[in-house]
Amino acid sequence: MSGFAASVLTLYPEMFPGPLGLSLAGKALGNGTWSLETTQIRDFGHGRHRAVDDTPAGGGPGMVLRADVMAAAIDSASPPDDPRPRLMMSPRGQPLTQTMVREWAGGPGVVIVCGRFEGIDERVIEARGLKEVSVGDYVLSGGEVAAMIVLDAVVRLLPGVMGNDQSGETESFETGLLEHPQYTRPAVFEDRSIPEILTSGDHGRIARWRREQAEKLTAERRPDLLKK
Amino acid sequence: MSGFAASVLTLYPEMFPGPLGLSLAGKALGNGTWSLETTQIRDFGHGRHRAVDDTPAGGGPGMVLRADVMAAAIDSASPPDDPRPRLMMSPRGQPLTQTMVREWAGGPGVVIVCGRFEGIDERVIEARGLKEVSVGDYVLSGGEVAAMIVLDAVVRLLPGVMGNDQSGETESFETGLLEHPQYTRPAVFEDRSIPEILTSGDHGRIARWRREQAEKLTAERRPDLLKK
Repeated sequence: MSGFAASVLTLYPEMFPGPLGLSLAGKALGNGTWSLETTQIRDFGHGRHRAVDDTPAGGGPGMVLRADVMAAAIDSASPPDDPRPRLMMSPRGQPLTQTMVREWAGGPGVVIVCGRFEGIDERVIEARGLKEVSVGDYVLSGGEVAAMIVLDAVVRLLPGVMGNDQSGETESFETGLLEHPQYTRPAVFEDRSIPEILTSGDHGRIARWRREQAEKLTAERRPDLLKK
Repeated sequence: MSGFAASVLTLYPEMFPGPLGLSLAGKALGNGTWSLETTQIRDFGHGRHRAVDDTPAGGGPGMVLRADVMAAAIDSASPPDDPRPRLMMSPRGQPLTQTMVREWAGGPGVVIVCGRFEGIDERVIEARGLKEVSVGDYVLSGGEVAAMIVLDAVVRLLPGVMGNDQSGETESFETGLLEHPQYTRPAVFEDRSIPEILTSGDHGRIARWRREQAEKLTAERRPDLLKK
């Protein structure tokens, strides 16, 4: 197997590759820079109706994905000696960071379990070493779109995907600051001009101005980032 | 126009509805609970090649989406008297929260501008009152998958979408804590039993145990949530 290997476990395999089949990620999928395999969790369900979930022990609303069903699906997609990290998309997880993205992009691939919001039996999370990852503090209908976030972020860092574009190295979160404002032609748009300094040709002053703007923006919008 | 109206401006309209055309969101799209309209930004590009971007004023890598092109696309999808918030997906934005999701779900809809990572000319962000929103501290190849996150989170809160499931009201971020662990049948999975208390039938003790577990998990994984 060559390239970065992504395996996604989901009740909705037909959602994939979806947006990842187009643009940068789609081209890279087409040329073998990465591969995407989906596993239909329901194929491992029980009985005539292929049941995958049951009511929560101790009561409460919703349904919980069964440990035995999930274990069988995981073992099928990711055998015990699989070197890839096994992720589970969950609002309870560690927040996804660009550092995690970069680490995974440098490895052999990822296995991603897409939960539904009712949750997955805790015992399979422990027994199969699933790392719970959250894309943010909001609630989704399931982990599928969150898995696409992870894959989009990782795939763009794979060798060759960004092509000649150097933006990957100089952008947000690489400096710990939000990015400075950007401008391009035309010089005047609806009576608004490009800040004079950007057309001065003085690269030192431009770099300082951009740094100041980035610091100001970060202080206004994300003081939490400055503390880090 | 009835239902929640989503308009998405993108260079990749063929990515939509994508995963939002299936499962809960897809059913709700089919029955008119919400609608989704895409605008191809390139239709408003200039010249024979429909150019939408240009090099950054002041230099630097990447390309910047032009203010005049974006303004024409936005005005086509969202006239000046449009009551819907105009969002722009951007790593520089305010972090998306469940509070924002709930507010938008109670309104007439959203307009979402999908940037590409090089950025959009700052002047059109100001002139058209775009609210920059970030789904998390990582870098994506573009705003499209981030827009799907916003729409998935919002649509599941629209009336009727979750059906009989009450989970929407009792889940993560509604209590300010991460969710307690969940268990379901079988009683024993690979020598791991469901915690005894959950099968005790004592609802008071179960509620206390769950609360304690949620507090412990939040303290371990997300001490930042406890401070809020």
